Amino acid sequence: MAETGTKPSVNRSAAPLVAAMAAEADNLRIAVLTGPLGCRLIDAGATRRGGIEAGRRLTEICMGGLGQVAIVPAPTTPRWPFAIRVGATDPVVSCLGSQYAGWSLADDGWFALGSGPARALYAKEDIFADIAYADRAETGALVLETDTAPTEAVVRMVADGTGLDPTALTFLYAPTQSLAGSTQVVGRVLEVALHKVHALHFPMERIVDGIGIAPLAPPSPDFVTAMGRTNDAIIYGGTVHLFVEGPDDDARDLAHRLPSSTSRDYGAPFGEVFRRFGGDFYAIDGMLFSPAEVIVTAVESGNSHRAGAVAPGLVDASFG
Amino acid sequence: MAETGTKPSVNRSAAPLVAAMAAEADNLRIAVLTGPLGCRLIDAGATRRGGIEAGRRLTEICMGGLGQVAIVPAPTTPRWPFAIRVGATDPVVSCLGSQYAGWSLADDGWFALGSGPARALYAKEDIFADIAYADRAETGALVLETDTAPTEAVVRMVADGTGLDPTALTFLYAPTQSLAGSTQVVGRVLEVALHKVHALHFPMERIVDGIGIAPLAPPSPDFVTAMGRTNDAIIYGGTVHLFVEGPDDDARDLAHRLPSSTSRDYGAPFGEVFRRFGGDFYAIDGMLFSPAEVIVTAVESGNSHRAGAVAPGLVDASFG
Amino acid sequence: MAETGTKPSVNRSAAPLVAAMAAEADNLRIAVLTGPLGCRLIDAGATRRGGIEAGRRLTEICMGGLGQVAIVPAPTTPRWPFAIRVGATDPVVSCLGSQYAGWSLADDGWFALGSGPARALYAKEDIFADIAYADRAETGALVLETDTAPTEAVVRMVADGTGLDPTALTFLYAPTQSLAGSTQVVGRVLEVALHKVHALHFPMERIVDGIGIAPLAPPSPDFVTAMGRTNDAIIYGGTVHLFVEGPDDDARDLAHRLPSSTSRDYGAPFGEVFRRFGGDFYAIDGMLFSPAEVIVTAVESGNSHRAGAVAPGLVDASFG
Repeated sequence: MAETGTKPSVNRSAAPLVAAMAAEADNLRIAVLTGPLGCRLIDAGATRRGGIEAGRRLTEICMGGLGQVAIVPAPTTPRWPFAIRVGATDPVVSCLGSQYAGWSLADDGWFALGSGPARALYAKEDIFADIAYADRAETGALVLETDTAPTEAVVRMVADGTGLDPTALTFLYAPTQSLAGSTQVVGRVLEVALHKVHALHFPMERIVDGIGIAPLAPPSPDFVTAMGRTNDAIIYGGTVHLFVEGPDDDARDLAHRLPSSTSRDYGAPFGEVFRRFGGDFYAIDGMLFSPAEVIVTAVESGNSHRAGAVAPGLVDASFG
Repeated sequence: MAETGTKPSVNRSAAPLVAAMAAEADNLRIAVLTGPLGCRLIDAGATRRGGIEAGRRLTEICMGGLGQVAIVPAPTTPRWPFAIRVGATDPVVSCLGSQYAGWSLADDGWFALGSGPARALYAKEDIFADIAYADRAETGALVLETDTAPTEAVVRMVADGTGLDPTALTFLYAPTQSLAGSTQVVGRVLEVALHKVHALHFPMERIVDGIGIAPLAPPSPDFVTAMGRTNDAIIYGGTVHLFVEGPDDDARDLAHRLPSSTSRDYGAPFGEVFRRFGGDFYAIDGMLFSPAEVIVTAVESGNSHRAGAVAPGLVDASFG
Repeated sequence: MAETGTKPSVNRSAAPLVAAMAAEADNLRIAVLTGPLGCRLIDAGATRRGGIEAGRRLTEICMGGLGQVAIVPAPTTPRWPFAIRVGATDPVVSCLGSQYAGWSLADDGWFALGSGPARALYAKEDIFADIAYADRAETGALVLETDTAPTEAVVRMVADGTGLDPTALTFLYAPTQSLAGSTQVVGRVLEVALHKVHALHFPMERIVDGIGIAPLAPPSPDFVTAMGRTNDAIIYGGTVHLFVEGPDDDARDLAHRLPSSTSRDYGAPFGEVFRRFGGDFYAIDGMLFSPAEVIVTAVESGNSHRAGAVAPGLVDASFG
């Protein structure tokens, strides 16, 4: 059915989660600081310990307050007993309109991909036209996978892009090598699936619901290893169940094209693939970025289609 | 031990959950409407998408605010990776005094079984005498497994039955074919067990606690298939652990009589059974309606008794 | 990295959880009473039924409001389908500064080990110097594994020890034989691991994070059996994943020394071991008290080390 209701505001929905995270900073072992131009910074793993719970909360904020995120027993990787389970009340808005790391921010050697609800206030990335979504709100939050606070020029760029005063912006950050950073990247398991659904040109308005799960990746001090593990948690350890409208054949086709195993580069830990391409991220087959195992239920036929499988051996090879 | 405390109010306990669901309507993709006689309607899956999280919240409301309901990895059905896990602080009051779909409501072609806390304001069903429970509260909520809002005559009947003004009533509804509807029916796994415990004439005051789990059933646009799958999720995929007082022999006897496998009609997907009896629901053996696997711990002996087993093959045959 | 932030207050963080538990007393089937010298008593399983959810909340209070505690499917004990999963935003402060049952309280035949946040107001146990933690707050909460309320002399002792007026103290209690008591003891799976880490003289400031899981033990009316089962849930059924700083060799060594299988007394249900030593708790090898399976990730190397394994057969032998 076509959705006729008002779209949710990812920034307004995330605002109480950001406020709670700041209020519980001591408990979460994170730092709340005033940054360039008076913006608020939340360091969840750069100079502070943070932890898995801080990462779980980062994930909820990244999903624009529309996500349900829990640490649960891992069902398919017995050597890695804990996983992150992710759902969303509106998965396309939550995952692509907020969680996807699509806002490229750079200044004088500093670089990060911005994810989280403030992206939807800017809404200039192509994907916003494709999902017909943009947000308006009094405050904005942006999540950065980095170990350094954004510079004044970056804060200015985000303020200008979102139309908000810098003092209305919160930047939350943690490096991939930290527990919070690692957790929030693995928490993208559903988003990664939806991003590939979009890349496969499946009509996004047909996505009704989705749930994902992936094992928590142990962090590594080495950036490439840490990044590789978070990717492998999804590529070789992730499972996603989507519910879609439209013809049954389209759902079957989507299921068969969606798992990571359809990729030319499937079969080795991501760090190896990355090094094989000389560290050129964009030389890697984009089709690799998706969960290992996929179920697509076509709600108009009631049929479920499945493809791919979790590869615990490759998860083990990656996680060490 | 006999319970000496004041019984909880299922309507008062559910009221904040109903208010939160209404306040987050855009996020949950549900509609809040004014219905006949000024009652409040919450459409969680009839003309709006709703989703699994909307269904999880319907389940909590249906349990009168006494339930703990979570989407978790499914431990026994690897092809269906997600399940709903249900507990209750007072399982008899929550499941039989509120969640059980026992209030038959009909008007001029419109028919639904009412479940949820408002039943306990009416409290004329026989089961309320058996569990010695009735509620009084300023507001009431009723959950309906239907795709059409209740008519004015039905709203009048509920207002008269509960003694509340129609403006103090909220009707929440979603068809079995929707994600929210399917989720909330599977979320009855513990209630179905307790209803059979009651049918077996086990003294309900001896039920101390219980937890249940069942795999989320993929919805189907065909009503019989959708209903069949939600039943099969429990009958062939459900597990319940009960804690009971009284003699150990009674607990053993209860465990052996409780699983669905004790039924004459066990062994085929529910849709097939339903068609075999020509769509006459009441011709089906009532003993079929119970979880596949049951553990009963007798708290006075400390012994646990078990019977039945999850049948993943029958779940697969049903879920498609 | 050294933690530079302000340590959390376990009593302040637990206070809203204690208030919520008291406010929901009817729902949770617990009693809120005024005790000696005007203190508040919460009976969660002595004369009231309480239940698993009451026990889950006791666990969160016991962890000083820093814990994340959920009932989840049990991944490694198929005959015992439900488990308690425990994390903490600051595991050393939460588990050793609050949850550990280290405050020995006795008066005229009444005896209990006090656990929970009020311990950190007293902070005279040796462990507080080792973890460099003490708390100050306006209210205090103490959890007692007992079926009898504390006496006036005990309340006086706790008031004097914490420096609080008795009216600012809440004592929460449930016997091991109750569902709430059993649940909160199994909820110590992470704390038991950290206590053994401490006993092994591993530097506690190197503990960064941790998650634990253990199957819910069915209670028994016999104290030794009930106590034995809660211990066995951890010793033979528990899994813990720790994240530690420092040299990789230290992490490997810790992993190998940590599981219960390293103990001289490993191999029989705890009740048997207890009886073998004539009921002398302190004659039992302290190294037995730890989870069955341990993973230690050294965050400075990125390597994970593992030892031990869940022993479902011994869990079955214990749980009956």
